[in-house]
Amino acid sequence: MFTGLSAFPLTPVINDIVDLDLFAALVRRAAEAGADSIGALGSTGSYAYLSREERRRVAEAAVQAAGEVPVIVGIGALRTSDVLRGAEDAQNAGAAGLLLAPVSYQPLTENEVADLFEAVSAASSVPICIYDNPTTTRFAFTDELYARIGALPHVEAVKIPPRPVAEAADRIRQVRAVLPAKVALGVSGDGFSGPALSAGADVWFSVLGGTLPDRALAITRAAQAGDAGTVRKLSEELEPLWNLFAEFGSLRVISAIAAQLGLLPQDNLPAPLQPLGEAVQGRLALVLSDLELV
Amino acid sequence: MFTGLSAFPLTPVINDIVDLDLFAALVRRAAEAGADSIGALGSTGSYAYLSREERRRVAEAAVQAAGEVPVIVGIGALRTSDVLRGAEDAQNAGAAGLLLAPVSYQPLTENEVADLFEAVSAASSVPICIYDNPTTTRFAFTDELYARIGALPHVEAVKIPPRPVAEAADRIRQVRAVLPAKVALGVSGDGFSGPALSAGADVWFSVLGGTLPDRALAITRAAQAGDAGTVRKLSEELEPLWNLFAEFGSLRVISAIAAQLGLLPQDNLPAPLQPLGEAVQGRLALVLSDLELV
Repeated sequence: MFTGLSAFPLTPVINDIVDLDLFAALVRRAAEAGADSIGALGSTGSYAYLSREERRRVAEAAVQAAGEVPVIVGIGALRTSDVLRGAEDAQNAGAAGLLLAPVSYQPLTENEVADLFEAVSAASSVPICIYDNPTTTRFAFTDELYARIGALPHVEAVKIPPRPVAEAADRIRQVRAVLPAKVALGVSGDGFSGPALSAGADVWFSVLGGTLPDRALAITRAAQAGDAGTVRKLSEELEPLWNLFAEFGSLRVISAIAAQLGLLPQDNLPAPLQPLGEAVQGRLALVLSDLELV
Repeated sequence: MFTGLSAFPLTPVINDIVDLDLFAALVRRAAEAGADSIGALGSTGSYAYLSREERRRVAEAAVQAAGEVPVIVGIGALRTSDVLRGAEDAQNAGAAGLLLAPVSYQPLTENEVADLFEAVSAASSVPICIYDNPTTTRFAFTDELYARIGALPHVEAVKIPPRPVAEAADRIRQVRAVLPAKVALGVSGDGFSGPALSAGADVWFSVLGGTLPDRALAITRAAQAGDAGTVRKLSEELEPLWNLFAEFGSLRVISAIAAQLGLLPQDNLPAPLQPLGEAVQGRLALVLSDLELV
């Protein structure tokens, strides 16, 4: 399951209410395009902002809309007991895998994070992916901690944060060297991920793939075919998008892309998060037009 | 209300259950010692980890146990609608003031934070304190944003993060210069706060004061009497504690102090947070003994 393109759809929150119909349409769109898995309730799916009940319904809707495509469900929460409830709900909803980020308020120690994963490992019967996203969790994994947690039962993937593209091959080699063989190497950061797949990463956990699956799949399939030149070309074409992601955060930009494509209303994030301002929306419209995406 | 010593008690979480009796005892202890206000559900009170229902009951218990002493209640949450529900619950429980930190998962923009405070300002009938704690919220206020939010109705205090003690006087002068006259200047970071009170800050939001109120009050009253020499002496005596706060986080250290004083069981934080390890507990015991606190 932790292979190829994992597409992360937005969870549309319209006037503070999760819109399951709009969400299911995004999931179907990615599944029908050929994504290898759906990542529901990732950072792009705003899991951290949603209640237990909202998450339960989103997980169920994802599994139903994805059909045969496996669904990985994000279960991060500040409190271990909430994480365990999320793991139970996700498995009851039919999740094929769990994605766990060590969300923090008080900065966490390595032992605290390791024990959190141990608790979830003991309570799970589906594969778990370590979700390393220091921008949002403010916890920085060491490679040694990947190895320690990767040795736990059910832990079968890690999602590492991006580095500069020039470092992709070295970084993939480093991480691979410390991971148990059973643990798939996943990458995130859409500008980094194509080159990282070419360098041997197993799976791309993709913001782009949740809303523009065709573009993400073209890069993924080229990488799987060993065509690093095409990967580089296709990924570099999208550079103007990667730049907007870096400047304004991938969530706000993909939210605006979904709105400009007519898939969602403009205001689709949970407050206090706001849509991009008018000037940036204008820049984005030009980029999408240049890329023939609208 | 935003004056003198605001004492922030721990919220004891024992085996994942909030212990309201132990909590009420901590509140009574600080109120009876003479704290000017109680800060319930601050970072030291682990608000970010608690459910709406738990927070509601903690706020009610705080108001009851505090007697005549006003209670300020922390209402931070990731989602604006949850913050507004927290504000309503806290006011219904009898809170005399609200403490709002812009908790984040996705990094927040200045406009997002300003609009969050505007929504709470419009929904509140009690004073609000801006809670600036970048270590936990990962949002860094500018002085201009203090001024902008300080101009909103009901915003009557700001709680600024610590700086090196040598910068206390300059920092207090800078912040005071931008704040509307109606906004009290509050300080945090226990090692910084005595000198900052001497330099003219109005209120000390104190971790120490929630568990060792006598020591915090001695510093506060000396500062209010204009005796900067005594403030410096008393604060410097506690330097070994400030060093432990800096090294292991004030929450874990004050949790261990409460346990060593016999006020709480050793394991009193919500998982994944863990008590300090044995070696550090030993160091702390020596410090407490040297200070004649145990």
